[in-house]
Amino acid sequence: MILFESDYTEGAHPEIMKRLAETNLEQLPGYGNDKYCASAKEKIRSACRCPQAEIFFLVGGTQTNLIVIDSMLKSYEGVVAADTGHVSTHEAGAIEYTGHKVLPIPHVNGKLEPEAVRRFLEIFCADGNREHMVFPGMVYISHPTEFGTLYTKHELQALSQVCREYQIPLFLDGARLGYGLACEGTDVTLPDVAELCDIFCIGGTKVGALCGEAVIFTKNNMPKHFLTIVKQHGALLAKGRLLGVQFDTLFTDDLYLRIGRHAIEMAQLLKRGIAEKGYEFLLDSPTNQQIVILGNETMRELAKEVSFNFWENVDENHTAVRFATSWATKEEDVRRFLEILPTSV
Amino acid sequence: MILFESDYTEGAHPEIMKRLAETNLEQLPGYGNDKYCASAKEKIRSACRCPQAEIFFLVGGTQTNLIVIDSMLKSYEGVVAADTGHVSTHEAGAIEYTGHKVLPIPHVNGKLEPEAVRRFLEIFCADGNREHMVFPGMVYISHPTEFGTLYTKHELQALSQVCREYQIPLFLDGARLGYGLACEGTDVTLPDVAELCDIFCIGGTKVGALCGEAVIFTKNNMPKHFLTIVKQHGALLAKGRLLGVQFDTLFTDDLYLRIGRHAIEMAQLLKRGIAEKGYEFLLDSPTNQQIVILGNETMRELAKEVSFNFWENVDENHTAVRFATSWATKEEDVRRFLEILPTSV
Amino acid sequence: MILFESDYTEGAHPEIMKRLAETNLEQLPGYGNDKYCASAKEKIRSACRCPQAEIFFLVGGTQTNLIVIDSMLKSYEGVVAADTGHVSTHEAGAIEYTGHKVLPIPHVNGKLEPEAVRRFLEIFCADGNREHMVFPGMVYISHPTEFGTLYTKHELQALSQVCREYQIPLFLDGARLGYGLACEGTDVTLPDVAELCDIFCIGGTKVGALCGEAVIFTKNNMPKHFLTIVKQHGALLAKGRLLGVQFDTLFTDDLYLRIGRHAIEMAQLLKRGIAEKGYEFLLDSPTNQQIVILGNETMRELAKEVSFNFWENVDENHTAVRFATSWATKEEDVRRFLEILPTSV
Amino acid sequence: MILFESDYTEGAHPEIMKRLAETNLEQLPGYGNDKYCASAKEKIRSACRCPQAEIFFLVGGTQTNLIVIDSMLKSYEGVVAADTGHVSTHEAGAIEYTGHKVLPIPHVNGKLEPEAVRRFLEIFCADGNREHMVFPGMVYISHPTEFGTLYTKHELQALSQVCREYQIPLFLDGARLGYGLACEGTDVTLPDVAELCDIFCIGGTKVGALCGEAVIFTKNNMPKHFLTIVKQHGALLAKGRLLGVQFDTLFTDDLYLRIGRHAIEMAQLLKRGIAEKGYEFLLDSPTNQQIVILGNETMRELAKEVSFNFWENVDENHTAVRFATSWATKEEDVRRFLEILPTSV
Repeated sequence: MILFESDYTEGAHPEIMKRLAETNLEQLPGYGNDKYCASAKEKIRSACRCPQAEIFFLVGGTQTNLIVIDSMLKSYEGVVAADTGHVSTHEAGAIEYTGHKVLPIPHVNGKLEPEAVRRFLEIFCADGNREHMVFPGMVYISHPTEFGTLYTKHELQALSQVCREYQIPLFLDGARLGYGLACEGTDVTLPDVAELCDIFCIGGTKVGALCGEAVIFTKNNMPKHFLTIVKQHGALLAKGRLLGVQFDTLFTDDLYLRIGRHAIEMAQLLKRGIAEKGYEFLLDSPTNQQIVILGNETMRELAKEVSFNFWENVDENHTAVRFATSWATKEEDVRRFLEILPTSV
Repeated sequence: MILFESDYTEGAHPEIMKRLAETNLEQLPGYGNDKYCASAKEKIRSACRCPQAEIFFLVGGTQTNLIVIDSMLKSYEGVVAADTGHVSTHEAGAIEYTGHKVLPIPHVNGKLEPEAVRRFLEIFCADGNREHMVFPGMVYISHPTEFGTLYTKHELQALSQVCREYQIPLFLDGARLGYGLACEGTDVTLPDVAELCDIFCIGGTKVGALCGEAVIFTKNNMPKHFLTIVKQHGALLAKGRLLGVQFDTLFTDDLYLRIGRHAIEMAQLLKRGIAEKGYEFLLDSPTNQQIVILGNETMRELAKEVSFNFWENVDENHTAVRFATSWATKEEDVRRFLEILPTSV
Repeated sequence: MILFESDYTEGAHPEIMKRLAETNLEQLPGYGNDKYCASAKEKIRSACRCPQAEIFFLVGGTQTNLIVIDSMLKSYEGVVAADTGHVSTHEAGAIEYTGHKVLPIPHVNGKLEPEAVRRFLEIFCADGNREHMVFPGMVYISHPTEFGTLYTKHELQALSQVCREYQIPLFLDGARLGYGLACEGTDVTLPDVAELCDIFCIGGTKVGALCGEAVIFTKNNMPKHFLTIVKQHGALLAKGRLLGVQFDTLFTDDLYLRIGRHAIEMAQLLKRGIAEKGYEFLLDSPTNQQIVILGNETMRELAKEVSFNFWENVDENHTAVRFATSWATKEEDVRRFLEILPTSV
Repeated sequence: MILFESDYTEGAHPEIMKRLAETNLEQLPGYGNDKYCASAKEKIRSACRCPQAEIFFLVGGTQTNLIVIDSMLKSYEGVVAADTGHVSTHEAGAIEYTGHKVLPIPHVNGKLEPEAVRRFLEIFCADGNREHMVFPGMVYISHPTEFGTLYTKHELQALSQVCREYQIPLFLDGARLGYGLACEGTDVTLPDVAELCDIFCIGGTKVGALCGEAVIFTKNNMPKHFLTIVKQHGALLAKGRLLGVQFDTLFTDDLYLRIGRHAIEMAQLLKRGIAEKGYEFLLDSPTNQQIVILGNETMRELAKEVSFNFWENVDENHTAVRFATSWATKEEDVRRFLEILPTSV
């Protein structure tokens, strides 16, 4: 079986496992107060060229989104997001559980258009009934998006500009940021993200770690007593070292970017091979997620040897499915898959 | 100034004020345990032809919606509603504050289409990721809707049928139910509502009371310890008599329906007069809310002598505005308004 | 039956009923934007000698407590209260429902001792684990307390001083404030309350109104967008006039204080009479609540003609019960009760 | 520096690290659907002699407590706990954040007395105002307690009996269960815990794992759609294998018990040595936590070479401090410490 179903089917990158083993018996203080957390933060600040960044390590992605959103918003505020955004659809109502509404805006290829956000905010501000409505208090985007698409630097600048005009923070969910930054043709760098966003996270779980997301507050805007807020949400890890050592390793010798690059190379290899066999893509993705339209018969045959994800029904006879590569994808597996894949008819 | 801006600009219907005065010095137990609450419940059960109905009186509409939804749903469930539903837009996130997502479906004239609800539920049940999503746990409709439109009996039956198939309750928000039941041409009666819905409320605030909504559980489905739940939400009225006396009066000698009929007569008078002057309506409403398209110049002039509500911009030169009648609308005011209204050009 | 079971067994004071009737057909804007709310606020500001006071009218007491506490606290803060405080015991967990812990301190006659509060805050601040604990973010007291006792001005000053040192607000729940202010021997005035507390409420429900509590922010500290917060909690009254007219009447010609004085006179009459018959009191209360120790046999006999509240078991043969007077208590009822009451043996 | 400050200063037990490394590159499904989770559950069921046990792996202790309590309670219920219980004091209000009150009962050596629980439940049920109060919906205990003390089997049976009479579940927080089960003289076994409790957790974080708590529902009482509830609380781990492999290892060849036994041996060595030097203990603890009374001068000197935890001030000149041993404590460190420790004067 060749697995392309997600970018979290393996454990951790071997360099991470090695460091965890090496440091295992060191006696360290808990709750993120250890030297590896400190070192990892310093390296991330440096990689972001954002010396004032305040950083906190959390375990998972939905956890990160709910804590960031809940701690940054006033009680009467909601978060603006694409209707296909992870917070809108696939977090089991975790944001609403904290009391906040997700204010959906129709997506374009998984992205929020800056002009659509501006229109939404303008209409809210002009509405005579706005005191009876949820106040938009933050804009949430993901980069790459759930569709594997990327914002351009120009788009991020425009979103950032809208947010600053309306004085609400821009939050970038970077669960797969490493893959986004490594794409051919992207003009968005880590320092760009740090400059244009008020908060963002650097995902570890899907980019080589066993678990872990680094939350970065770029504008001296970490909520007061954030550790207590994290604890209150049941998200404070006793052995914070587990996150510290992992992120310290990811930001040593550019491991985070190297992981991204490998996955993108594999995804491009896959993409070219699939295209050469005559298949079409649901949309053009530069990242590690490729959404391909297969005939249903082909899909069923393929599923016997390859795992991938159902995406959506295209028509009676065709289905879109997602292939994901990762730091752990082997070139031989991609080539074997391309051999198995029949030419499209 | 002639006020058509809402159906709650006056105090209470005079018969209610009279009963409140007459009973004022009686010593009665608190928290809804008084004889007027008991009597009101009995009269409502009878009017609904639903002898098993369990009834609780609450103060306001948003309060009613949030308590019904929060107490009926499991923590991981959300409520399906039209994207224009009151719970979706104009309750300041009160539903989300209780931890539950409002799952929006595009409306058609303010209404939820039964087939759209069915499709939504089907897609959810077929989604391989549904365990990571909010479970639809209730369907919310309002009757009349925010647009002043009404469901037919056939539509209510179809919605009820879908809900029963998927074993989730149907909740009808009847904040303006009295006006809906009194409309010409409607085939929906109070016993129909009680039969087809699992929970509904009979609005008092907008139909002649100082305040008050009667929540009716029709299927022996009132949540256990509902009084405690109400108290926990800060919604238990110490002097429950205030609600008991009012609803007892509303359901004595058909006052609730008489109030509805008067408002509808006034609305029809208004509607015919406006149409005769050559204006168009945003949509055809049989209820006490009429949404009319005015030229902006006419609108501005009219606003000097008449109050109404902004609804939406139609084009550069035209605006849709809402006129609402009520139990307190005087025929002379309607006629005076029609005199003031210039013929459309 | 003579009712002493609570101070909310009747409807509203006749002057209030009269004003509600007189203003009933006036057309007024909703949500508290009417002239009666404005006038009532002005009169309250004047009675408090607090021209900058920001005032909002809510319907009920638990509702007031939960909204004030939830809107003033940070998410990680709790409210310090006596272990017998209303918020600690008899609000069905309404405070916790908003996500905030009530931090209990042992009471002394229903009161919080300033030194106990100071010690609690000192210990918290000195605790090395405080980041893993709930931060004390407010001090809640009631005046009169649940036991019918009163703070002295000196005690209020000391509590206020502690709160200012620790920079947390002092909130006084005045559900029965009118009775407290009217007591013989009290040196606490309404302007004192306004000066020493950061927020307080003036209770209407138990002091002559059908419903209603006035929330008063004395230090330009009303949370931003408070109306939206109120709406979000389901507590915004559409016909705000109902509260405006009532409080406007209560603060016209000193009605609020006149109501208080009458109840206190009745309570003193009751207290003297009961004492003369040889009974003991659980504690010495100057307010409209008198807690008396009765032999169980006497209690059972009395209960046939008089209603009162169980308070607690004193020993095998004696029970403490509460008698409450109100604005509506008639002198003839008190005298009749004293005739019925047998001499203690 | 010799560290006795907690039982989570090291990483994971070497056998766990070895298994994580060995399985690291296996491709496995996410969210706990992997074979290691399945195998670990089977081994735990077997160790508990509870074949019907439903098991879910979570990351942390506070997270476990809040999810178990929130998912098992009705909205109007609270959890009964010792006033010193972890949920009462050191979880930053995480339980209240989910909307539920912690109902505190005075502890005796960190434990809840069965008779005190019974009295509390009796009083609640007899209270005429109970509908205005938080309903006790669960009893929470920890074993070992925060004080390092243990329940006897007889006490657990009595608590279990009270809970069954009142039909509320008994929840045992076993964050340090491994140390409790390994104590000399305890008559409580893992199958006893499974039989007597309705839910309990087996702590991994403090007993040899990098992170992880196994939640065990023993009575076919796992809440429906528990995975979705976990996701909604931000607690679903994408790479569930991290927990599965760890617990599978802990329950292979009795590792969990071996870890416990080692820590207890070290604690007993420490305890005897400290006693021989003439010091007193705040209370007699059989577990891995020893609370010792030191002269302040001795404490300050010792702190230069040994880390331990402040517990409480005993008098002006003496302080109680906590020493904790773990799976990783080395005998040589204990002996070295005992050499450093001066004889008490």
